[in-house]
Amino acid sequence: GLEHSYEARLERLLLALHRLSGAAVLPAQTVDALAAAGRTGGTAPLPGTAAPEHTGGPAGTERGSLTVGAAKAGALLERQLTLARTRAHSTALQALGSSRFHAVADKVAVLASEVPLSPAAPVTGLHPLAGAAEERLTDAIAALPLITAGHPYNAEALVHGLSPDPSPHPQDGPWHQVRLLLRLHRYAREVLYRGEAPVDMRLLTAGQALNRHRDASEAAAAAAQAARTPRITPATAYALGVLHADQRHEVEAARFAFQQAWQRQPVDVP
Amino acid sequence: GLEHSYEARLERLLLALHRLSGAAVLPAQTVDALAAAGRTGGTAPLPGTAAPEHTGGPAGTERGSLTVGAAKAGALLERQLTLARTRAHSTALQALGSSRFHAVADKVAVLASEVPLSPAAPVTGLHPLAGAAEERLTDAIAALPLITAGHPYNAEALVHGLSPDPSPHPQDGPWHQVRLLLRLHRYAREVLYRGEAPVDMRLLTAGQALNRHRDASEAAAAAAQAARTPRITPATAYALGVLHADQRHEVEAARFAFQQAWQRQPVDVP
Repeated sequence: GLEHSYEARLERLLLALHRLSGAAVLPAQTVDALAAAGRTGGTAPLPGTAAPEHTGGPAGTERGSLTVGAAKAGALLERQLTLARTRAHSTALQALGSSRFHAVADKVAVLASEVPLSPAAPVTGLHPLAGAAEERLTDAIAALPLITAGHPYNAEALVHGLSPDPSPHPQDGPWHQVRLLLRLHRYAREVLYRGEAPVDMRLLTAGQALNRHRDASEAAAAAAQAARTPRITPATAYALGVLHADQRHEVEAARFAFQQAWQRQPVDVP
Repeated sequence: GLEHSYEARLERLLLALHRLSGAAVLPAQTVDALAAAGRTGGTAPLPGTAAPEHTGGPAGTERGSLTVGAAKAGALLERQLTLARTRAHSTALQALGSSRFHAVADKVAVLASEVPLSPAAPVTGLHPLAGAAEERLTDAIAALPLITAGHPYNAEALVHGLSPDPSPHPQDGPWHQVRLLLRLHRYAREVLYRGEAPVDMRLLTAGQALNRHRDASEAAAAAAQAARTPRITPATAYALGVLHADQRHEVEAARFAFQQAWQRQPVDVP
């Protein structure tokens, strides 16, 4: 999970750098190449993906139209996120051989035996739990600043864009929590309906908006983090600043999308 | 006009730096002090404005809560825009003594005698001109990408945020032109109605949105320009990058506001 998220974050940031450079819309092949470069650490495309055209090496293909600052920012992010991904991979491999992994596996087995996976199993005991989950979700959403989020261009997400505090934006916390509660609520619904629940488009769209919120929030943090690397050039730092602000506006856009999705009355109340 | 615009641009950028630093809402006094610092080159408050509290010098008062990067970015912008303002002032003073000024003054006098300023003067000749102005405005607005602008968070304004081209954003041009045509249309209306025109809120709101568009566009360009100063620190460059992106999003927000104002049907068609 962690490994994949670093890869996705890198891809999001590299695509944003291209978009911000006003590069022509990327051909699908280039996106493949970008993703492949992220996957393999930039050395070679994975077997099965199209090989990038070698007009001046992979770097030339990937960043042909970028300024020096944007290209350097991209290379820096690639280095840092690939390193983080490799570390996550090692940790995962180590965990597989550890006693802690076996303890977790045992717990999962116990949990699985408790969940009524058979259609004949009684689910009545789950109703109060599902109700409690929904209540927590409703409360958490009620605490969100949805009125602000519903006003486009409220410029709220970037408010701490230059704050000296390097920790993640505290204003994102409640939204991350709602994302988890929304997922819990959806799972509870699935269990209660035994897989025959009608697809609730509202829940689906709202959940997608919050996933986008999480991705953009973490990408913005990665750009800000990269800007703290010692001895980078001003051009690199400038590009990272633009990139950070761009991703924070994605955060704001995702909140707006969530607000729009959520204010729609559900048509199929259970 | 030019002198004042540099001052307003500096104030806009300094306020944005404070907002982006998550500083508490500025007390009115600090805004005064900021403006005074801009007016006097940061040496002393103008007579008549409140003196800033001297807790660690003017810089301490103004940027107490800013990071080093934001503070340096602010100082750099202050230096560059104050210099530009001083140059504009000198140019204006020189022009006052030049033969070119007298030629312009003569032209204005001739024009004034041609405009029917008296209520009794016939205005029929103006109708075709006013109609032509309105037609040009309608055509120019029809050419604007209003459908995109009407979708909040379309991320269009920042598309060339990292492009190597240092010239102003070409995508802003049509909007600037509409701003001028809208003003021309409003003036024509005023002349035709001889000052008794009902206030058209739609024209007023749309015009304000386009003024904001122009201000944000120029502020973003000033931040990008400052980032090209040699030998700035990475922290300064990062802050200028965030600031540039922030102002480009203001540009996008202003286009959205214009689209919202314009799509409303005028209630008082002449």
